[in-house]
Amino acid sequence: MTEHLVIIGADAAGMTAASQARRRRGPQDLRITAFERGGFSSYSACGIPYWVGGQVAERDDLIARTPQQHREHGIDLRLHTEVTELDLDRRRVRSRDLERGTEEWTGFDQLVIATGAKPVRPALPGFDAPGVHGVQTLDDGAALLDTLDHGCHRAVVVGGGYIGVEMAEAMVQRGLKVTVVHRSAEPMATLDPDMGRLVRKAMEGMGIEVVPGAEAKAVLVGESGRPRAVLTTAGEHPADVVVLGLGVRPQTALARAAGLPLGESGGLRTGADMRVQGADGIWAGGDCVEVLNLVSGRYQHIALGTHANKHGLVIGTNIGGGRAEFPGVVGTAVSKVCSLEIARTGLRERDATAAGLGWTSAVIESTSRAGYYPGTAPMSVKMIAEQGSGRLLGVQLVGREGAAKRVDIGAVALTAGMTVDQIVSLDLGYAPPFSPVWDPVQVAARKLVSAGIHRQSE
Amino acid sequence: MTEHLVIIGADAAGMTAASQARRRRGPQDLRITAFERGGFSSYSACGIPYWVGGQVAERDDLIARTPQQHREHGIDLRLHTEVTELDLDRRRVRSRDLERGTEEWTGFDQLVIATGAKPVRPALPGFDAPGVHGVQTLDDGAALLDTLDHGCHRAVVVGGGYIGVEMAEAMVQRGLKVTVVHRSAEPMATLDPDMGRLVRKAMEGMGIEVVPGAEAKAVLVGESGRPRAVLTTAGEHPADVVVLGLGVRPQTALARAAGLPLGESGGLRTGADMRVQGADGIWAGGDCVEVLNLVSGRYQHIALGTHANKHGLVIGTNIGGGRAEFPGVVGTAVSKVCSLEIARTGLRERDATAAGLGWTSAVIESTSRAGYYPGTAPMSVKMIAEQGSGRLLGVQLVGREGAAKRVDIGAVALTAGMTVDQIVSLDLGYAPPFSPVWDPVQVAARKLVSAGIHRQSE
Repeated sequence: MTEHLVIIGADAAGMTAASQARRRRGPQDLRITAFERGGFSSYSACGIPYWVGGQVAERDDLIARTPQQHREHGIDLRLHTEVTELDLDRRRVRSRDLERGTEEWTGFDQLVIATGAKPVRPALPGFDAPGVHGVQTLDDGAALLDTLDHGCHRAVVVGGGYIGVEMAEAMVQRGLKVTVVHRSAEPMATLDPDMGRLVRKAMEGMGIEVVPGAEAKAVLVGESGRPRAVLTTAGEHPADVVVLGLGVRPQTALARAAGLPLGESGGLRTGADMRVQGADGIWAGGDCVEVLNLVSGRYQHIALGTHANKHGLVIGTNIGGGRAEFPGVVGTAVSKVCSLEIARTGLRERDATAAGLGWTSAVIESTSRAGYYPGTAPMSVKMIAEQGSGRLLGVQLVGREGAAKRVDIGAVALTAGMTVDQIVSLDLGYAPPFSPVWDPVQVAARKLVSAGIHRQSE
Repeated sequence: MTEHLVIIGADAAGMTAASQARRRRGPQDLRITAFERGGFSSYSACGIPYWVGGQVAERDDLIARTPQQHREHGIDLRLHTEVTELDLDRRRVRSRDLERGTEEWTGFDQLVIATGAKPVRPALPGFDAPGVHGVQTLDDGAALLDTLDHGCHRAVVVGGGYIGVEMAEAMVQRGLKVTVVHRSAEPMATLDPDMGRLVRKAMEGMGIEVVPGAEAKAVLVGESGRPRAVLTTAGEHPADVVVLGLGVRPQTALARAAGLPLGESGGLRTGADMRVQGADGIWAGGDCVEVLNLVSGRYQHIALGTHANKHGLVIGTNIGGGRAEFPGVVGTAVSKVCSLEIARTGLRERDATAAGLGWTSAVIESTSRAGYYPGTAPMSVKMIAEQGSGRLLGVQLVGREGAAKRVDIGAVALTAGMTVDQIVSLDLGYAPPFSPVWDPVQVAARKLVSAGIHRQSE
């Protein structure tokens, strides 16, 4: 008998699940229907800042697989079709064709919920004006580009997280004068403030105005109906275009209405097999789920394309009759503002404290290549480890070329539960064009060892 | 009572040990004498190809710490002074002042043997002619630069390992026409031949002539007494300068004469604390020792500055009253030829077979950044894992910018004993400017998983 797999949401998690299930089970064995509210499938949302900035020429460059390609693989992909209700008792979903306005029920044997996340848009005056842009979907990107094409000179980016700093870069690339306003003491609050300060200093060095500790109050709209400024607790910041980078929230209204288990963040809770807890044949992945942080042992919401792809692979493998697990994350993220690279993994100081751990941290400065090698670039590395055991808890890097991907050393070491002593001993790639003789990550580990991380604190 | 620490060899291992011991014990507690045959201390031998190639302007750029700086730290550094005998019974060393010709005995409480390695120079006709250059020491580099200054047009590099390819780059940088002759089927025999072939193709694309399977027979010397060609089993290769890149051997004649334990490679055998096996207060590190390969469980000789520095740190910490260990290596090495990056860690196919392991390998092509991101560069990744357990055994990368340091992911995973399944799940840094959504190393791991690495072979 043919099983029916229904997918809600046709981006990374959903369509990776569909493709992987299809790879393992043919159309006679598994029918696949995917519903997508928007007009695109399988695109790189992470690439939108670079399309807006002009480094990526065409919208379609961001599309990994077209609807037509999915259909050729026997996936019935229905665009502009929104699922409006989950009926778990009768194992069916109600969908609405957004173009024709028609509705229908579709039964399923297996269901994948991959409804993604929604950018936070404050319910404040002016934030719904034209010229105020989120950057979550390709349509968002196109709308922002359209605004920019009509002659903008000053952009205000609201939010100093990774979307905020990447969009600041995009606006700089477009030749705009850019102000970033954000609530926290320093931008990139996913780093500790001392490392965030390095990001701010570098951004200021690029001519970006950074306004910390500023709570947005309103977008002030001019006579044209478009922004003229952003009003924050720190004052008025002139703008003819406003970009929102306030983070995202899991889009789980459907799941909530159906009574599926959600965590504190509002994200769906799944097991390591990505099956929704307590629900048979119902799977979830991507930006609508919570993930287990292997360092803190806590669940959290992290919207990242790389996790979504892994979730999709695990779901598709399991539906396809194999066995796969997504064990969790260590909280790795990399981003850049122009030539500045920013990376983090594991816990910040405040996370370690919240997890009840005794910790010590160290910050060092080193270089991307041997000090005498041309093109060597400075980088700062922060390392946090548990006092006594010396177990690595987190790594943060801010630097130029060669800084960001060094975080992978920390990510793998965290996954393996290594101590800083073990990190000092690691056999990492060394040659003058690629690294100083001690990799900067090891220099940070050495500093913690010297500081007595392996001694019990008094 | 003041202890006396004597160091033989004042480069990475020896002087790192001296500096670290000094950091922990003052001059009243520990007297330190270091004997160095040559005229330099603490320099980066790994940087010589880039000095010869002109990317590094000055010889002194390669000197990490001058003799004067060491002396200011209370280390009695005696240059141009060769240790000619170890008398372990009476715990003393005999040294000869090479400038004055005088000899003396010096007693020690602790001894560090850091005598390094010696480039292989074949005992064949013409290999001792002027214009035939090794590149192990700063003096070697200066001699080669002197030859080049007298007008050279064609270089033959004998040996296709990492010194060979790096010197090929240096000669290209100097504007010479370059031929690399080597014995193995492909250059970079520290890679499997399929990956070595990619290196050869890329080198040929750069205009470097590569002659594989060629055994050197002689350097043919012209009327000037200088090279006119290198004769190999593959023919005559015109040259007015010849560079040797035939690898190095541990320099352990002194240790051998004193009856200290040597391994098959001729390198000293130490424990994880870097104390010579069975010898009290005698330590050894750097290019004159064997290291434990944590993947194969075998000892081998690997001459690399990064290991030498770690050995020195461990020795200095232990002499200084602390406790430190060098657990071993996983065989990581990175190098480049012009824009081509080459990296390896762990076991090659032949090593896995020699270790009696059942293995499977996979090669994939991916890119350094998201496919749509400007500057994305192709790379090939080979991964080798144990059939059944899926335990990672080795990773090799050949590509352009962004390929080499990705080997660190493999190096840390090997150290932790991870399986390819675990590598697929790793939370590595992802953003379009830094990586495709699946890091190339994970793409290789996925291919092994798909190929059934976790199934027992029949």
